[in-house]
Amino acid sequence: MAGNSFGQLFRITTFGESHGVAIGVIIDGCPAQLDIDLDFIQSELDKRKPGQSKITTQRKESDTVQILSGVFEGKSTGTPIALLIPNEDQRSKDYGHNVDVYRPSHADYVYDAKYGIRDHRGGGRSSARETAARVAAGAIAKLLLKQQEIEIFAHVTSVGKIDAPNLESNDLSALLQIREENIVRCADPATAHEMIEFIDSVRKDGDTVGGKISCIVKGCPAGLGEPVFDKLHADLGKAMLSINAVHGFEYGSGFAGSELLGSQHNDRPIPNPSPDGKGFITTTNFAGGILGGISNGMDITFKVAFKPVATIMHNQQTINAAGESAEIKGKGRHDPCVVPRAVVIVEAMAALVLADQFLRNKVSIL
Amino acid sequence: MAGNSFGQLFRITTFGESHGVAIGVIIDGCPAQLDIDLDFIQSELDKRKPGQSKITTQRKESDTVQILSGVFEGKSTGTPIALLIPNEDQRSKDYGHNVDVYRPSHADYVYDAKYGIRDHRGGGRSSARETAARVAAGAIAKLLLKQQEIEIFAHVTSVGKIDAPNLESNDLSALLQIREENIVRCADPATAHEMIEFIDSVRKDGDTVGGKISCIVKGCPAGLGEPVFDKLHADLGKAMLSINAVHGFEYGSGFAGSELLGSQHNDRPIPNPSPDGKGFITTTNFAGGILGGISNGMDITFKVAFKPVATIMHNQQTINAAGESAEIKGKGRHDPCVVPRAVVIVEAMAALVLADQFLRNKVSIL
Amino acid sequence: MAGNSFGQLFRITTFGESHGVAIGVIIDGCPAQLDIDLDFIQSELDKRKPGQSKITTQRKESDTVQILSGVFEGKSTGTPIALLIPNEDQRSKDYGHNVDVYRPSHADYVYDAKYGIRDHRGGGRSSARETAARVAAGAIAKLLLKQQEIEIFAHVTSVGKIDAPNLESNDLSALLQIREENIVRCADPATAHEMIEFIDSVRKDGDTVGGKISCIVKGCPAGLGEPVFDKLHADLGKAMLSINAVHGFEYGSGFAGSELLGSQHNDRPIPNPSPDGKGFITTTNFAGGILGGISNGMDITFKVAFKPVATIMHNQQTINAAGESAEIKGKGRHDPCVVPRAVVIVEAMAALVLADQFLRNKVSIL
Amino acid sequence: MAGNSFGQLFRITTFGESHGVAIGVIIDGCPAQLDIDLDFIQSELDKRKPGQSKITTQRKESDTVQILSGVFEGKSTGTPIALLIPNEDQRSKDYGHNVDVYRPSHADYVYDAKYGIRDHRGGGRSSARETAARVAAGAIAKLLLKQQEIEIFAHVTSVGKIDAPNLESNDLSALLQIREENIVRCADPATAHEMIEFIDSVRKDGDTVGGKISCIVKGCPAGLGEPVFDKLHADLGKAMLSINAVHGFEYGSGFAGSELLGSQHNDRPIPNPSPDGKGFITTTNFAGGILGGISNGMDITFKVAFKPVATIMHNQQTINAAGESAEIKGKGRHDPCVVPRAVVIVEAMAALVLADQFLRNKVSIL
Repeated sequence: MAGNSFGQLFRITTFGESHGVAIGVIIDGCPAQLDIDLDFIQSELDKRKPGQSKITTQRKESDTVQILSGVFEGKSTGTPIALLIPNEDQRSKDYGHNVDVYRPSHADYVYDAKYGIRDHRGGGRSSARETAARVAAGAIAKLLLKQQEIEIFAHVTSVGKIDAPNLESNDLSALLQIREENIVRCADPATAHEMIEFIDSVRKDGDTVGGKISCIVKGCPAGLGEPVFDKLHADLGKAMLSINAVHGFEYGSGFAGSELLGSQHNDRPIPNPSPDGKGFITTTNFAGGILGGISNGMDITFKVAFKPVATIMHNQQTINAAGESAEIKGKGRHDPCVVPRAVVIVEAMAALVLADQFLRNKVSIL
Repeated sequence: MAGNSFGQLFRITTFGESHGVAIGVIIDGCPAQLDIDLDFIQSELDKRKPGQSKITTQRKESDTVQILSGVFEGKSTGTPIALLIPNEDQRSKDYGHNVDVYRPSHADYVYDAKYGIRDHRGGGRSSARETAARVAAGAIAKLLLKQQEIEIFAHVTSVGKIDAPNLESNDLSALLQIREENIVRCADPATAHEMIEFIDSVRKDGDTVGGKISCIVKGCPAGLGEPVFDKLHADLGKAMLSINAVHGFEYGSGFAGSELLGSQHNDRPIPNPSPDGKGFITTTNFAGGILGGISNGMDITFKVAFKPVATIMHNQQTINAAGESAEIKGKGRHDPCVVPRAVVIVEAMAALVLADQFLRNKVSIL
Repeated sequence: MAGNSFGQLFRITTFGESHGVAIGVIIDGCPAQLDIDLDFIQSELDKRKPGQSKITTQRKESDTVQILSGVFEGKSTGTPIALLIPNEDQRSKDYGHNVDVYRPSHADYVYDAKYGIRDHRGGGRSSARETAARVAAGAIAKLLLKQQEIEIFAHVTSVGKIDAPNLESNDLSALLQIREENIVRCADPATAHEMIEFIDSVRKDGDTVGGKISCIVKGCPAGLGEPVFDKLHADLGKAMLSINAVHGFEYGSGFAGSELLGSQHNDRPIPNPSPDGKGFITTTNFAGGILGGISNGMDITFKVAFKPVATIMHNQQTINAAGESAEIKGKGRHDPCVVPRAVVIVEAMAALVLADQFLRNKVSIL
Repeated sequence: MAGNSFGQLFRITTFGESHGVAIGVIIDGCPAQLDIDLDFIQSELDKRKPGQSKITTQRKESDTVQILSGVFEGKSTGTPIALLIPNEDQRSKDYGHNVDVYRPSHADYVYDAKYGIRDHRGGGRSSARETAARVAAGAIAKLLLKQQEIEIFAHVTSVGKIDAPNLESNDLSALLQIREENIVRCADPATAHEMIEFIDSVRKDGDTVGGKISCIVKGCPAGLGEPVFDKLHADLGKAMLSINAVHGFEYGSGFAGSELLGSQHNDRPIPNPSPDGKGFITTTNFAGGILGGISNGMDITFKVAFKPVATIMHNQQTINAAGESAEIKGKGRHDPCVVPRAVVIVEAMAALVLADQFLRNKVSIL
């Protein structure tokens, strides 16, 4: 109940601090006989790892993942899969100056208030380093979903006030290729260029900037999600809001949808023109692929808002642990904008929710 | 795991369909010795009940709540508190025309897809009637929080494109009084008037409209919320997204915060000028009272977006259970806009999250 | 977490005190499309209800069950099934003399110690009346298992020092008929006669006596049970130990098995002589149908020990709430021996465990 | 839900196979500020490790534990504590002969039946090697309990038909010293000698033998345990039954208690003669320190029965994966009797239950 687990049937528990020995995750409930592709897991981690471009932190971590259990001859056995990622670049001394000073908009104070003790080396458990464990577990969830032909694609659609246009293509593989060709991970090359320039200028100012990530899920069958509390979008929302720096979540029509009339917002179902006539199609998709908390078979769409990173290279007024006025200047190596590295975290968390709800749906009917 | 429970230590499980015998809720984990004020629970339900004004559904339900267990001589005993709300106005015949036709933007199709069976009388389990059980349970959570001097206040801040100005007062009791003096439950009387006029015109058109509810929590101590997955705002987000018709959630700076620079967004802590110097104060509150998922003692603020009600009195194209084209016209008695009745649901869900995290925090330190 | 729920996927939550308005249960996770036979549920309750013979309490309760939700046109819908059993014979005044005196071997003191408040009318939540809710829920679990051709049969095999011989028949339907022909529910008529005589003499002495119940499960497929903590026999053990008055649980060879050598205890597998050769057969069944916590397809066998009922009609020394010496004499209407009425409770709890593990097993492999 | 976690608030999740890279455990919910004594954790593991005497397996594992997270400067921080125990002596080749043959009374067949895949190297996940992770986690639970002055002591009270007399001393530290002076871990030296001789003779015959372990808990305050399903003895029972080879559990009067009359079995409370008069004392303790599932402050007592180890050095008839008759002869290095090494496992599981219920009890009252 201490909140380090996520999911019910496909359930992960993460551990580790930013400057400890290692971080890791146990997946309990991965069904037996899934092909576990270690290279794929590593390639996902590579998309999140620090030091990958000029617009990410220059901290160096190879984030090499090891499988400790639950996999035999390349397949899941039904027993817990433990994944370990040793920490390499633990320059704790960079953080010595923070021991007694509460960094503005960081979690330093609240950890002290809650626990009366705090691992002050770089954020400890509150560091976004923990999300590497999620990405590793999410990669296995993606492998499970891939087998079901469910695809997830996220990309950066806003940096500060720069917004990408709506996607024109429906081909997620093609979009993925475009996305990975630029370091900001926006599927629109022109906007990507603009975003990169802006982040770079912010970085040079010692400042940071927020952004937004949009996600689309294709191939999800109807029926995923539980009524009432564990609605599919409620689980997705919790998953996204649990990512460091996220301040908002919306799906389908989102906040803008609340300004519409019902006659504008209702998605009209039409007969499915495919030969077998199976499957649910609507002329519009304000619902974002989810009705009453349950997937309807249309594309699932949602958007996630990230605040700017709190660590800036400016002098800032704050207080110390004694409650006295103090000044702090950011040091260390931090991201000017988290969204390029967060794209794969958003996908991982979405995969974890979908894998969990996929399994839960298996027992909803005799 | 079928998703009808919410919370870990202060845990509720709801049951019931819109047109069944009754709905209800079991609260498991309410600590012993809490004064249970049945009148207060009923007064909360009265704020949610149908038929309370011209801008809500005219369906009639007294929503009279009974306590079946867990309370002895006016106090909680530590055993499960069961609350029952009999259904009175079950005009199932109103719904006979919907048996084989999927209402646009309703959950009819997905229930069939998931379960292969559906209680088609008025939405069954997907009906927002289920939220009455949440309001009853939330009232008990509020009693627990009140004892801790934690106050929750929500009100309608948008209807369609009509937005209320920011609150000027900090006195939640006064705001509550203003809010309850108008039927739309907006704490700004002028905006309330405009909203009511607009909803009434929408209603006359047989249409519906969406809106937004803002919520503020005062008096919450630092330390509530668990790191990583069960962050306080992640639990609040899931709670809100589990309410019928909600399409978006943001806290603190929210979506707008993602457009800012770190130097603009960081909240600077200042020494607490109070005599004892205890407590955390920042000059701004973009954090919405939550850092790293844990309350910091400042006001907690969040906003919830509701889509327009799907049932409209217009002819709409749709399909039937056989997948063929069909036409449907809304009948029955429905809300033109849910936000006036949803204010107390938002408060109830917030209270459930806070009561749960309050108890969880009791075991975070020896 | 307050311990009023049982099961993971087929999950029940019970509520209610012995002298409150009603008791009841919510089943969350019953799959859709199960035929819900209300008469069967009632007939199960009738086997547990008080006043059914001279060797049970003479308290009168019809224990009439109502379905409040989750069932539509005779079938489960996948939504929570709420079952309500109103309390009828609430002679609270019988208990007025117990308010301040702790009855020996009852839970009075510990409820006061834990909660600082106690519903002192007849045991409140600690009363075995709560088990009626389990029997009602267990009846639905039995319906699910019946569909899978899994049968459960329990009967009384010991009362005090009177032990029944081992079962000679394998035909559970025939055994059930024999069992129900005597009021002590032992499947051996001669032993049953002896047991009844003994219980009746104990009753006349104002005393009570303990006993044992044995249970056999036939038709359970291989694969039910989870490795490590949620082993099938560990879940069965917890289920049985959660029943009022149970002091011991053993399965397969049980306590006696611990005296054997491995060469005596090992069950040798043999080729299955059936035409398809499928299924696991061993020459002996010391394993009780469970290996490594997982069912192997052989009969599952276990035994449960019940202590004598604490309420006796003798003068007993005890203490009052002030810690002073006091004397108490049992009044009211109590069972001289619980096992005749507990047979159906043992079956119900076994059914709940098996239904849960049946569903859990559905997601153990892709 | 795949059953690799145990506990609610003090919650552990274990992972690892007998012949994989490592085994380990995550403790989620250990309160902050507990002193974590790594030497104590290691000393507990040393009591369970193989190769410690002539009557245990000669397999060599140092079972050296590492702390990966959750501890800072010697204290728990409130974040997950991950403990890793690398596997050293992985002679998988010893098991090559078992790939296609189902060992009698082992879990080989049921893992194949459940998962369709099996890590056949020495039992994989079904191996008792997993219990090393429990002992490590249990050591931390013991540290928490020690701070509360709750002591746990288990020892071997039966090997085969050799039974130890009842304990004469109440001094658990003294008993612990006696227990650790003999390799069978019986607190009665004369019986210990007899047991060791017997196990050694059994070992020379290539056979194995079962036994029993008794446990006593002193200093447990009244109030631990939740009513209804999570009764203290139900949780203890599940914990013990989840240990490899356990076939039975009883507490207090146990199975023998079911033969008694109520007038014999009732424990009479007497006024507490201590100066403050606080605390509950009964003249007898058939209740085993637990009433209605809740601790009453008296000693908690329970007993656990272990079947003989299935691996014997004899020729045994069995079947292979094709269902054909086959013969197997045990090889490798196995225990002739598990109870000497299981004593510390029983204590660890008891500690985990008590630590969990201790935390749960903290939220039972306002």
